[in-house]
This record gives sequence, C-alpha cells and structure tokens, in this order.
Amino acid sequence: MTVMNPRQVDTHDKKLSVYSPVQVYRIDRTPPLPKVFNGHFRLENGPPTTSAGHPEDIKKLFPHTFGQPSVHLAPCEGACFDEARKLKVGVVLSGGQAPGGHNVIAGMFDYLEKNAPGSVLFGFKGGPAGIMRNKWVEITSRLLYPFRNQGGFDIIGSGRDKIETPEQFQQAVDTVVALDLDGLVVIGGDDSNTNAAMLAEHFREKKIKTAVLGCPKTIDGDLKSKQVPISFGFDTACKIYSEMIGNIMVDARSTQKYYHFIRLMGRAASHITLECAFQTHPNGAIIGEEIHHQKKTLRQVTNTIADIICKRAHIGKHYGVFLIPEGLIDFIPEIQTLIAELNDLLATQACDADAHGAWRTKLKPQARALFASLPSSIQDQLLLERDPHGNVQVAKIETEKMLISMVEEELSHRRHEDTFPGQFKGQAHFFGYEGRCGMPTNFDATYCYALGFAASALLGFGHTGLIASVSNLTDKPAEWVVGGTALTELMDLERRAGRDKPVIRKAMVELDGGPFREFARVRDAWAVEDSFVSPGPIQFAGPSADDTCFTLKLELGACVSA
Amino acid sequence: MTVMNPRQVDTHDKKLSVYSPVQVYRIDRTPPLPKVFNGHFRLENGPPTTSAGHPEDIKKLFPHTFGQPSVHLAPCEGACFDEARKLKVGVVLSGGQAPGGHNVIAGMFDYLEKNAPGSVLFGFKGGPAGIMRNKWVEITSRLLYPFRNQGGFDIIGSGRDKIETPEQFQQAVDTVVALDLDGLVVIGGDDSNTNAAMLAEHFREKKIKTAVLGCPKTIDGDLKSKQVPISFGFDTACKIYSEMIGNIMVDARSTQKYYHFIRLMGRAASHITLECAFQTHPNGAIIGEEIHHQKKTLRQVTNTIADIICKRAHIGKHYGVFLIPEGLIDFIPEIQTLIAELNDLLATQACDADAHGAWRTKLKPQARALFASLPSSIQDQLLLERDPHGNVQVAKIETEKMLISMVEEELSHRRHEDTFPGQFKGQAHFFGYEGRCGMPTNFDATYCYALGFAASALLGFGHTGLIASVSNLTDKPAEWVVGGTALTELMDLERRAGRDKPVIRKAMVELDGGPFREFARVRDAWAVEDSFVSPGPIQFAGPSADDTCFTLKLELGACVSA
Repeated sequence: MTVMNPRQVDTHDKKLSVYSPVQVYRIDRTPPLPKVFNGHFRLENGPPTTSAGHPEDIKKLFPHTFGQPSVHLAPCEGACFDEARKLKVGVVLSGGQAPGGHNVIAGMFDYLEKNAPGSVLFGFKGGPAGIMRNKWVEITSRLLYPFRNQGGFDIIGSGRDKIETPEQFQQAVDTVVALDLDGLVVIGGDDSNTNAAMLAEHFREKKIKTAVLGCPKTIDGDLKSKQVPISFGFDTACKIYSEMIGNIMVDARSTQKYYHFIRLMGRAASHITLECAFQTHPNGAIIGEEIHHQKKTLRQVTNTIADIICKRAHIGKHYGVFLIPEGLIDFIPEIQTLIAELNDLLATQACDADAHGAWRTKLKPQARALFASLPSSIQDQLLLERDPHGNVQVAKIETEKMLISMVEEELSHRRHEDTFPGQFKGQAHFFGYEGRCGMPTNFDATYCYALGFAASALLGFGHTGLIASVSNLTDKPAEWVVGGTALTELMDLERRAGRDKPVIRKAMVELDGGPFREFARVRDAWAVEDSFVSPGPIQFAGPSADDTCFTLKLELGACVSA
Repeated sequence: MTVMNPRQVDTHDKKLSVYSPVQVYRIDRTPPLPKVFNGHFRLENGPPTTSAGHPEDIKKLFPHTFGQPSVHLAPCEGACFDEARKLKVGVVLSGGQAPGGHNVIAGMFDYLEKNAPGSVLFGFKGGPAGIMRNKWVEITSRLLYPFRNQGGFDIIGSGRDKIETPEQFQQAVDTVVALDLDGLVVIGGDDSNTNAAMLAEHFREKKIKTAVLGCPKTIDGDLKSKQVPISFGFDTACKIYSEMIGNIMVDARSTQKYYHFIRLMGRAASHITLECAFQTHPNGAIIGEEIHHQKKTLRQVTNTIADIICKRAHIGKHYGVFLIPEGLIDFIPEIQTLIAELNDLLATQACDADAHGAWRTKLKPQARALFASLPSSIQDQLLLERDPHGNVQVAKIETEKMLISMVEEELSHRRHEDTFPGQFKGQAHFFGYEGRCGMPTNFDATYCYALGFAASALLGFGHTGLIASVSNLTDKPAEWVVGGTALTELMDLERRAGRDKPVIRKAMVELDGGPFREFARVRDAWAVEDSFVSPGPIQFAGPSADDTCFTLKLELGACVSA
C-alpha cells in the first residue's frame, strides 16, 4: 500500500478537472470518527445470537457461523491484539448505487493505513462478477482521493451478479486464495449480505482463511435490525427527495392550482415515503405496509385520496401534495392477483388493451372488473411491458399517473353528486435516480466512514460472518458504538421458486413502531392544514446539516416531534 | 406603515412554526446592497431610447412614454430630491412563480421604510385581478417577515389575468385613484411588463398621477435586454435543476446502463437548457433556437442524438445524459405544420390514434408521414389533449419520451445494419415545478432586493414607464448599477390574432451570442468524453454559492470557460 498524502495528489488530473467547486470542497472533509479509534481497543462480546426466524433451519445451513455473538469495540490500555498485522483485504460494491459507498472504502483504507501499514486493499471491479473473474484494482491513496465524500460507485463499479452455483463458489475460492486474502467486505443490500453470509460459511467450511463481512447499503432503508439501525444512503436520498418535495409544496401553495402526486423510489418497503413525509408534511402519504395490512383495494386507496381532496375543497383549497411509494401496487392484494392472472394469460396468448377480445373473459370476475376500471395507459403498461421471464414489469408502471387518473374519475362522480365543490388538476412526478448518487450528507459521509473503519477493525480480529454495525447514532459521532453482528442474526427462511432459501428478512415499516405511530398521529392534521415544510438543500450545509432522519430518531425513541 | 423590528416578530406564529431550520435561517439574511444606497443619490440620464423594432409604430402607440432616457442612480452630496416624500405604492405579482419575488417586495418595503418613512405599500392580491377588483393587503413588517428570502409568491399570490379592455383599464384607474397611489410596480414576465407599459401610458394620458414600473421576472430567462441583463428566478431554477442533473450524471456513469433524457422547463426559449448544460456538461443539449434556425426535422434531431450514442458505443460507453428544452417541438417546423393541420381536423371531427380511419387521408402527405412515424403514446397526446380553444396542449407532450422512443427505433435499425454495437435503455425525466419555488439563491435574493430598492427609488423620482434594472452584475453587489430603462425600449410589434400588437420581444438564445458560441465550441468534446459536472446544492452555501450563471457571464463577456 502506497502511503500518500492526499494533498500531494495533483488536483489538476483528469477527474478533478471537471469537478464542481462543491465536489472539490467536499473531498477534503475528513469525517469525524467514533472516539474508540483514538486509542487502543479490544473486542467485547454480546450474548450469542440467533436468527430472525427458523433458527433451527438457519443453524443447519450455517453450522460454522451461526450463533456467534455480536461484538463491539471497547477502549483498552495498550495493544490487546496484533493491531499492526498487515492484512490483505478485498472489497466489493454490490447492487444499486447508494450515497456513501466510496466513504466505506475510504474508511477501510484509512484504518489499514493508520493501524496496519503495509496492508493491501483490493477493489473488485463491477460487483461480485469481479470476485468470480478475479478482476480487481488496488485501492491506493491517489486512486481513492477524488472519490472521498462523493456520490456514485464509480471507483470500482458495482454489479448485480450473485455467487450462487458450486462453480461460482469455487471461482470465489480460487480468487481469494490466489490473492491470499485475509478478508473480504461485501457492501450491499439484503441479497448481497445474504450472499456474504453464504461465502463466509463456505470459506469456513473449506478451511479458507478469508473472513467475509457485510456492510448495510440501500437507499430503500429496508436492511436494518436492532444492531444495524440504518442502511447507508437512505439519509441522503430522503433529504434530496425532500428538498424537491418542499419546493413543489411551496409551488402548490403559491399557485393554488395543482395536486402533485409524487412517486418515490423504494419498492419493497415504504421507508423513503415515510421519512420524506416527516421532512415535508404532505397532505397524504401512502404507506404500502398499511395498505397491505388492511387488505385495501385500489378503489379504497383512490377514495382515501379523494376524501382528502374533498375535505380541502370544502375549505377552499384546491391544491396539495401526495407521496406515493414506488412499490404501491405490490402491496395491493387484488392487483397482485390481477398481475398473476395476466402473466399466465400473456404466456399463452397475445392480449390487446383496446380490443374487447375473448382473452378478457378468461380473467376471473374480480380481476376482470379491476382491469376494466384501470386507465387505458395503465392497461397498456400491464399488457405490453414484460420482462425476459414474461412477467409484467411492475416498476415501469406509473402509479402516480394511475392514481391521478382514478382520483380524477372519482371526483368527477362526486362533482355530479354535488359532494365535491371543486376542481382537480393533477401533476405527476417520480424521484428516483436524483437521489441514488447525490454526494452523501454529513450523516452518510460520517456513518460510512465509520462503517469502513469498523469493517477493517473486525478483519484485524479475524472475525467472519458479521455485518459491520455502527450504533448509538442519535448521539454525536464521537460517541457512536462500533462493532458487528452475525449476518445469520438477520436471516430467515423464505420460499423462493418453490424452495426454502435462507435470506435476510427485509425490514418493513412496522405499523406498531415509533415512526408509523407518530405519522398516524399527525397525518389528519397534515391532510387539511397546510403544514408544508420546505427543508431546502440539507445535504451538508445550513443549520440542519448534521441532523439525521426522523424515522431513525423515532425508531430509537429519541425525543422528536415531526 | 408600521415600523417594526423584524426581530420583535413572534417567531412562533403559525407560519414560522412549520418552517424548516433552513427556511428560518434564511429569513434573517439581509442581502448586501449596491453602495449607491449608502448615501444620497440623484438620477443620471442616459441617451434617449427607441424600441426593439418598429420605433415609429411604438412611438405612436406610446406617445407619452416613448423615447425617455434610461436612468441610473449616482451618488451625490446632500439630498438632491425630496427623498423623504411619503409615497403610496402598490405592487402586484403577475404570472408564474419565480424565486425572489418576495425579495423584490422586501426591497421596496425596506427602501420606503428607510428613506421615506410613513409611506404605505399595498400588495394587490391574486395578480392583476387584484388591481381590477381593488383587492389588496397592506404590506407590513410583520406580514413580510416570514417571506424574506423564501420561494413562492404566497405573500399576495399571483395571477395570469391581463388588463386589456377599456372597462378593465377603467377599473385599474378607479383603484389607483381610490388608493391615491403615487406608484404601481408590476412584477412579471414579458406580457406583464407589456401590460405595465400600457398602464403607464394610459395613466399619463388620463393625467393620473400614478407612475407604473415593471420588474423582470421569469425563470425562463427570456425577458432581458442590454439594460436588463437577466430576469430573476432564472439563476435559482437553473441551479436546482443542475443539482438534480449532476446527481443523475453520477448515477449514469456509475451504473453504466442508462441514457437519461431530461426535459427542462422553458417553453419559448432554451436558456435554461443552455445554462444547465454549462453547469453540468451533458453528452448533448438541444437548443431549440438552433433547431429552428437550421429548419431541422424531428428525424434529424433524432439522428443527432443517435449519432452521439453510436459514437459512445464504439468506445464502450452505453450511458449518458441529454438535455431537452420543454418547448422543443415548438421549434421544429414540420411538427408545427402537423399540429396546425390536426387542430383544423380536430375542430370538425373526432380522430382516433389507433384506427387507420379516413381522417388520416385528410392530412397532407408530409404531415401524414410524420404522424405515422411518431410513437403511439405521442399520437394519443396529439389527438386527445385539447385545450378549451381546441388546440393541442403542446406543454403536455412528453417530448423526452417521444425522443427516447424514436432514438430506440433508430438505433434498432442501426443495430441490424451493424453500425450500432451497443444497447440502449432510456430513462425520462422532467424538471419544472421543482425549481420555480425553491428558496432564491444568494444571487437571486440579492438581485431581487436591489430591484425592489431600485423600483421604490425610481418612484421617489416620479418616473413612469420604466422597468427596474440592475446591471454590472458580474461585479460584487456593492458595485452593481441601479436604475431603470424605458419599457418601450424592449418593445416591438407582433402579429397576434390578426392584429399588430405592441409586445416586449422575447429574448431568445442568440446563435451568434457568447453563450451559444461557447457551447458550440465545447459540445463535441462533452458528447464523447465523460465531462459530467455535479454541482451539488449550490443555492446558498459552499464555495460557489455566490457565483451567478454561466450564460450571464458569457453574455457580458466576463472571462469564463465552461
């Protein structure tokens, strides 16, 4: 590992030459570290762990790594382990982008440089495929410098491949043996961390020395547990979306002419929608988990929105903002049934949205009625867009436009019945890519840097099968607690493609959790009052730049009122 | 006028209670003022003015206000005019929102409070309709306080009504006479300022004492002249859009999987697209004025984009970003012809996009071929969406999706001909409402505050028929030059609805101007290289927070290289 003062790096090199002033200014920010890294430290064990579900089955699948205790670093007098042992470490970015990934790598690198000089850090290129193909680049100070505190996963790229087959596991073994790796850190979401757990188990079983650790990444916020309070990237993405939502709210109130329906990224869970609701106070925010729990129909969702619009019309307000989670239709049981029936039909014959062909009669009555009630553009999307497996591409369905169209129709009925004394004009928005690669907020920059330090430190202790964890996050960074918890602790069995598979259970919005309960308490007021909040640009400047998310604070019981 | 220290205002009142920390922190920022306001000043005349076109006709239409010289404030020893004369002034916000409108009002108010205590400022509610209906609210320190440096036009609202008929002119006369107004300031775009000029002329003709001034507002940037270098709101909107574009660029480069087509607000002119291009360096940015000048067809526009994608594919790049002005199809002559033919057809019969009905044969061959070449969703939009006058609603046409679809088809042909060695996946975005009501940037906050001071000062001198102007904007705010120029100087005759009408000529992107020439010089490099710049949040913090736009600097010949 080349030790290099970042200041010596030629700031006129190609990459930096097209950096904006803000990008350049962020590079030289060194995030504050948890104080445990100020001196010597040792590992302290928590109680043994179990799993999120089916512990007996998970134990059988992970005999070598199941049940190990969570650990955290604690200060000690003098060196308590061979701190300076040189390590060979690999790191890989897996899955979609999330702000802060570069800082995890920077944290890993800086830890090794400071505590174990002479270590080597390999960055596998293009995601897990880089491991299987033994494609890597050595992370050097010079290579790393332009990526510090920057968004994106450009430094080594990412990918969505999985290491699944026996051949692929063998390729991974070949690579880590060839590179003589002491450790491998997988930065990814639930699936990637599941993969990390399986690699850890496999290497241990094969008596390969390489330890494998995971690191919690996803803007969706659905990879978390008691020990891993938040996934990185969520804070940044929500703050960028909230800035835009807040601007749109001021426009709505000022123009008094439009209802804005804003769809937000996050398919499996509605954490992003919930957090953005706390940041901005919309007139309505649909939480998929609630819809699912209450088994609501699309008509009922439509009516909930139409009711709010009616209430506002009665007090002379014909404008507002609704937030919609990207994955909404995955949460509505009747739509799931319709899509399943359509997938079957589409597999055997061509269907046409506009023709009233015979194929429609093959839908069961309920699905047929639902299909008929949908706007024609959505019918088109349901029929035409299929993925290579013949399935409807749910993510391509413009839910916000569907709801606008259905609400419009509903309000038109109500106008004829004289129960809606107003007008309705909808504007559709989708925020996704705008947030995945923003420069990480102060929180994400600092959190990720600490996660990187944690990962390298745990490798120094030779631990495997853990996910790096940093907790006590509502306190100052100096007080954050650093450690790791067993990946198996987050796991459960899930039936996929007819087989029970061990997976990390996605963390959904808990209807009895602090954030949702607070939301349920305040949403009726938000519906009719204009309580709109415009957070402004809050990534890393201004009075709220060091705040973290509302949902995290509410989950941790920190006193907060949205 | 109640003199009130803003600090005395109860910050816990209803409005402020839902302000974000950034909103609250912005409120107390007092923008720096041009130094001419530090002491006494007098008015200095420039040479007499003429008009942007048809000076003889404009002179006939504006006999009382035509030709008056531009003026600017110059420091003088001791009071050179009755500075402390109490004034009764009205102000109105007209047309779409633009960041900074509140600061114009704050500047007017603070000038009066400081220089002419005892003056009264009336804010007409809901735009020009408020003048006609004599609906107003007195602007007080307490009312104004929460709106300082905030986005939106909430303080008094806005509207799109025009004062046009003799009856409406009489209503305006009645109002300004009833309120005994010394002056009226119209904050608006080209049409609103045209209206201001007509009011000024009318009042002068009728020997009404009320002076009328305009103030240049529009995010589109198409209201400007030599004396009025920029309209307010443009800087903020472009910076907000650029932040999002920059994030998407990092995503594009990091994911290496998508081409993002980003449509940007701004229908009549492509200034926003050009400015955002300088801020972010996309692979392509379509400037409507160039398309129009070169009489390009939709096919040619499509091919230009496809050529860039092909070039990038040959060097292994299958991702990128294109910027598209909202008004693109207004600039393509063949589409204008098609729309005109469709409007005629739609007026007499129902047309159906999917049926190959007889109506299609009524299109002329060129229009018929063009229509047939369009994606079916765009055919639908052209046929179904009509405004109350029976016209196609061009603004609702999703140009970015149309181009994605056409580029996809073109590249598919090229793939079959073995000239496109790649893949193409498009992602569509539209940024509009996100930028119209953001909190004004440092530049817009300061510029608008100076415009407000300028407007009140000019009214103190009793001038009418001017548009407030602040120039020398590439220097520090202290050095800015404050004054006004004749509204008639910006005017020309335009044929509208079969009649010659005096209008303020929209400022288009000049193909021989500094900004476009610089763009033409660098765009080929941007097309193939990844020169992407991610500006980050640059509204009012960070090292570039006090920079103004690239296009302004290039227009003024200030040394700049994008």
